[in-house]
Amino acid sequence: MIELKTKLIDLRVGKRMVLLHEKDAQEIGTLAHDWVKIASKDSKSIAFVDTTQSYLKRGEIGIFRDLYEELEIEEGSEISISTAPPPESIKLIQRKIEGKALNKEEYQTVVRDIVNHKLGEIQIAAFLLAEEFHGSTMDEVEFLTRAMVETGTSIDFERPCYDKHSTGGVPGNKVTLLIVPIVAASKLLIPKTSSRAITSASGTADTMEVLSDVEFDASELKEIALRTSGAIVWGGKLGIAPADDILIRVEHPLNIDPQGQMLASILSKKLSVGADGVVIDIPVGEGAKVTTLEAARKLAKSFVELSERFNIRLQCGVTYGGQPVGHMIGPALEAREALLALEGRGPASLVEKSTALAGILLEMGFVAQPGQGKDLAKEILASGRALKKMRQIIEAQGGNPDITPDEIHVGEQTVAIRAPCDGFVTNVSNAALTAIARAAGAPMEKGAGVVLSWKRGNKVKKNDVLLEIHAERASKLNDAHNLALTTNPVTIEGMLLHKIPEFI
Amino acid sequence: MIELKTKLIDLRVGKRMVLLHEKDAQEIGTLAHDWVKIASKDSKSIAFVDTTQSYLKRGEIGIFRDLYEELEIEEGSEISISTAPPPESIKLIQRKIEGKALNKEEYQTVVRDIVNHKLGEIQIAAFLLAEEFHGSTMDEVEFLTRAMVETGTSIDFERPCYDKHSTGGVPGNKVTLLIVPIVAASKLLIPKTSSRAITSASGTADTMEVLSDVEFDASELKEIALRTSGAIVWGGKLGIAPADDILIRVEHPLNIDPQGQMLASILSKKLSVGADGVVIDIPVGEGAKVTTLEAARKLAKSFVELSERFNIRLQCGVTYGGQPVGHMIGPALEAREALLALEGRGPASLVEKSTALAGILLEMGFVAQPGQGKDLAKEILASGRALKKMRQIIEAQGGNPDITPDEIHVGEQTVAIRAPCDGFVTNVSNAALTAIARAAGAPMEKGAGVVLSWKRGNKVKKNDVLLEIHAERASKLNDAHNLALTTNPVTIEGMLLHKIPEFI
Repeated sequence: MIELKTKLIDLRVGKRMVLLHEKDAQEIGTLAHDWVKIASKDSKSIAFVDTTQSYLKRGEIGIFRDLYEELEIEEGSEISISTAPPPESIKLIQRKIEGKALNKEEYQTVVRDIVNHKLGEIQIAAFLLAEEFHGSTMDEVEFLTRAMVETGTSIDFERPCYDKHSTGGVPGNKVTLLIVPIVAASKLLIPKTSSRAITSASGTADTMEVLSDVEFDASELKEIALRTSGAIVWGGKLGIAPADDILIRVEHPLNIDPQGQMLASILSKKLSVGADGVVIDIPVGEGAKVTTLEAARKLAKSFVELSERFNIRLQCGVTYGGQPVGHMIGPALEAREALLALEGRGPASLVEKSTALAGILLEMGFVAQPGQGKDLAKEILASGRALKKMRQIIEAQGGNPDITPDEIHVGEQTVAIRAPCDGFVTNVSNAALTAIARAAGAPMEKGAGVVLSWKRGNKVKKNDVLLEIHAERASKLNDAHNLALTTNPVTIEGMLLHKIPEFI
Repeated sequence: MIELKTKLIDLRVGKRMVLLHEKDAQEIGTLAHDWVKIASKDSKSIAFVDTTQSYLKRGEIGIFRDLYEELEIEEGSEISISTAPPPESIKLIQRKIEGKALNKEEYQTVVRDIVNHKLGEIQIAAFLLAEEFHGSTMDEVEFLTRAMVETGTSIDFERPCYDKHSTGGVPGNKVTLLIVPIVAASKLLIPKTSSRAITSASGTADTMEVLSDVEFDASELKEIALRTSGAIVWGGKLGIAPADDILIRVEHPLNIDPQGQMLASILSKKLSVGADGVVIDIPVGEGAKVTTLEAARKLAKSFVELSERFNIRLQCGVTYGGQPVGHMIGPALEAREALLALEGRGPASLVEKSTALAGILLEMGFVAQPGQGKDLAKEILASGRALKKMRQIIEAQGGNPDITPDEIHVGEQTVAIRAPCDGFVTNVSNAALTAIARAAGAPMEKGAGVVLSWKRGNKVKKNDVLLEIHAERASKLNDAHNLALTTNPVTIEGMLLHKIPEFI
């Protein structure tokens, strides 16, 4: 044990971490990535070690922001430090790496240590990769799901509650902005928590934020939902299943998404809001998360099996995900298209998909007869009741309830990509459209995005506009335009894809 | 692309990394763990992104030490930044995660990106775990080994060259300090590069450092080795196979050591010094890296197969690793015991093991007839030629050639652990002895360590000294003493291991 003088480091590192001079670390017999016990006047904790030869003098200890906020440590105070064994979950992750299944208590331990920032990214990566390699039994997925719920906030709406989720990957998928008001208009409670975009051009929370606030805490969400029967808010401020956010941050650079983890991620969020009936949208196609029908059916079966263990009624809708839903991509454009659809002026792909998924919930909630949910959803939409409900929700969430589609501001810097020849549209690339919309500034710049004029099978003439890019700034428009010219967001039969050699 | 003002952050993070304000990161469409292109007035690079809400103001970019040293960026200068695709190796690691083998060029790409700090710990962890899960074909181990050699320094000694390595895990394994002078005394060239302790009480480099300097660059090592036929230096300053150091730093917190990686790690170091003949010591037993004879045989076969691909003559010696080699553990104590053995006063376990392994090299180098290597090694040792050679090596490396075992300073703070009853020693715990020696201050405090009086099968009487702990400071002695009382470093038949309940 040695005594060191604290130096605060105003950097968030996502874990409890201290910085030691390399010589001091050697003296207490610890290495970077090891754990140490630290004790200040008022508090004790364990923390990760990182070492430096230059940032600190010997005898100093650097305390990163996460830790000094938690322990209320002051600059210059004395801290004693000694070696600590690794947290228990390290051995459990080791076991999972070796291919052994973990039990209920063991998942609780792992998830608790993740939430309490006792594990570093390396160990979390190891846990996720072990799930990816060995898979997880349905028992394990259940234990993981329970542990993720128990380590977070749960919201009790005191009424039967319905919910919807998409496995993702399809640009322009603004169906939640139709489903929630349709279902809420039928008096079923649907307090929808959504995410912001990580790799897409707009998450549902980003899109809804064009129309109203989306950041509410649990009690505010409850009040809004009980008042209007529906809500569309960002899940990140609610504290539900916080392990999920941490795990997703490590999944992103690894570019993996183990199926057991995906199931637990989605179900834990639904359980945390006490959902009784859930519909899962599984888009299938190139560029979507699930690429084959067979994989979608298998995934759907797993969702159903898992939900039965929690007494949740759950149905999956396998949907077409090979090209965008509707024509507009990007926060403001998607909000505009959703509002157009609520006014009865939406594209068929958006209306059909939204009402089909909403219909499943209407049947689950016994407001529609079996087999008649979609018809009822269309009726609610056509009657204007869904639009009226959406305006109530916008108002309850602090937005302008009277906004019209045209009043939604979209980026005024625009450029059109035109058809180079006559022909049929043979391909629309989800990945290219997302990349172009992001290059234009989405999701950060709400008005940025892409409007796709034609979809697969449409006949186009030379010089027809294939897509229009919107941006808020000329430099971003330029970036997006260049990207559109070098990728093939829309392919026309007969179009020259490459010239070889390129420069003649 | 945006322009930002640099702020230098004097922290080494082991990779090319920049810190962005979260809003700036969102504006250019990048997330923590993504890569960005950065361009200053004079230089360009790609770097990792981390984000902060508080450490920087918007418009500032934090440059960590690794990067600003490399690019010579100055505080306050302007840097432009734009998104960059991940390095090519990311896709290759993905392929390895999926269980596919990589080819020669692909291993080159991965190892080059590791050495150039283009991969973060998460990705390196993924690579190592993929090796652990799927294993590696012998082709892959060969490609990996070659890539590790090619990305580092190679030393050409211009003479046939012999080498030795231990897979590790046994405390007190100071055999290198006998093998090198025995082999060098026979005129074979043996320029041994060694490591410092990571989790043990003393690495060979730590032990040798008690007697002389060990930090030399490649040309200094060459000069020393050619002058005296032998050398024992720290490998860390030579720049050979630098990927290995980076990989080992990530293996440590993961607590894994994929076999293909171990093979490549050891062989790449031997290839980098141009070894023609190598003996590998594989200690087997509880607490050693390899715990069963069957596993040792398999590992030995893989070593031989791999060495054949590089035209290296290699033999493995499977040795007993269930308890310490000799009686002394800790840098100074091990140096003392080695010197005693060179003077002809060493314990049998140390002398037998060292001469057996040295004998293999003497036969390989054709200075001993087949089957007579060990006898020749013993003869060289008994004649005093090995001691004389060791004194030459110590002198060539800047130490005192006349030092006697008694002149080696060991920690003066001591405490003895005594036998609680009469009986036979039934167990000696490698792990407990290592932990006690480290608690006493080893390897940082050279004089700290443990002297073990008796080994398995010895008969002891009540109150005989079982082990003596040495430390340089009273507080460390106390820590080590407490640890010795609560673990069972030496077990005597008839000894009470636990009292239940403990406090009556």
